[in-house]
Amino acid sequence: MLIGNSNRQVTELMKKIDVGRNVPIYPMPVTLIGSNVGGRPNFMAAAWITRANSTPPMLAVSLNKPRLTAEGIRENGTFSVNFPGTKMVRETDYCGLFSGRDADKSGVFEVFYGKLETAPMIEDCPLSIECEMSEVLSLPTNDLFIGEIAAAYSEERYFTEGRLDVRKIDPLLLTMPDNSYWAVGEYVGPAWSLGQELKEQ
Amino acid sequence: MLIGNSNRQVTELMKKIDVGRNVPIYPMPVTLIGSNVGGRPNFMAAAWITRANSTPPMLAVSLNKPRLTAEGIRENGTFSVNFPGTKMVRETDYCGLFSGRDADKSGVFEVFYGKLETAPMIEDCPLSIECEMSEVLSLPTNDLFIGEIAAAYSEERYFTEGRLDVRKIDPLLLTMPDNSYWAVGEYVGPAWSLGQELKEQ
Repeated sequence: MLIGNSNRQVTELMKKIDVGRNVPIYPMPVTLIGSNVGGRPNFMAAAWITRANSTPPMLAVSLNKPRLTAEGIRENGTFSVNFPGTKMVRETDYCGLFSGRDADKSGVFEVFYGKLETAPMIEDCPLSIECEMSEVLSLPTNDLFIGEIAAAYSEERYFTEGRLDVRKIDPLLLTMPDNSYWAVGEYVGPAWSLGQELKEQ
Repeated sequence: MLIGNSNRQVTELMKKIDVGRNVPIYPMPVTLIGSNVGGRPNFMAAAWITRANSTPPMLAVSLNKPRLTAEGIRENGTFSVNFPGTKMVRETDYCGLFSGRDADKSGVFEVFYGKLETAPMIEDCPLSIECEMSEVLSLPTNDLFIGEIAAAYSEERYFTEGRLDVRKIDPLLLTMPDNSYWAVGEYVGPAWSLGQELKEQ
């Protein structure tokens, strides 16, 4: 049931339909979360992730409670966030399909370590972030891991004019419930700029 | 300084460069967060958002502490998450440029209300979610609002074969620090499927 505000006709509003509660974010960024489990690198695909704090830089990633990665993060107090390019879609999907409990994922990627020393990162990913676990918010079925970003690593070839270039990173997107991967598409316009016109009207 | 694991040569690893700590997620979904402030609808653009819990469905959105929207959410205990299509980029950017303290944004969009009655939603957005505030995690400069999804609304025209179709929703993406909006691009492949090949090898 939709309740219109005073300046809308109910007949117009009736176009809206209730689509249920279990809706995704459109679209979701695809990452590979790295952690050492028993001293061995493990990676899981995760799309429930966001920046969480400006200063210091922090991010939040939501993991189902029984995840092996959650154990690894707690074991070391560190984890990594790696952004696979679209070329890495098969390896990424593999890391989403199978738990480290059932498949040894330590050999899927060439791994490097940064200043935290225990957060495994993926050599082939255009961008890798290493985080120190800051706190964990326990929710009913998931744990929200808050990590402070310790460092991030990329390569010169992913830069244009001194800045990371999303066209070169070529990150993967995910949509549900159609369970599809997508690439970033057309440029739409400059942010913190286009809306200026409306203010001046 | 990068520390390689035993099977990597240092010379190869040296391609990686430290890009600093303040890195974004690539890419970020663009949403408009709706709240009533003093009984009047207000909307801000927000890209720091993720699903946070599976059951019940929850999401998390990070807001700078001084935001007017944060006041509105606390006032009513409700908020909405609206996904603008690429056609709405000017209005969306406007809501990111100007605070409700400086600009009355109540007239930018046609508004409707759902079952929570105090979470204003945007008629023109292909998908709108209304949430009850569940808890707030206070971080140094931001508050992470956890909301339980109460309902979500769309229209028949955004569906294909009974499912929401990201091609029809045509959501906006944001990248930083280049401050650019993008559309969703090419289909890359099926999720929870492509990686199966690697298991079978």
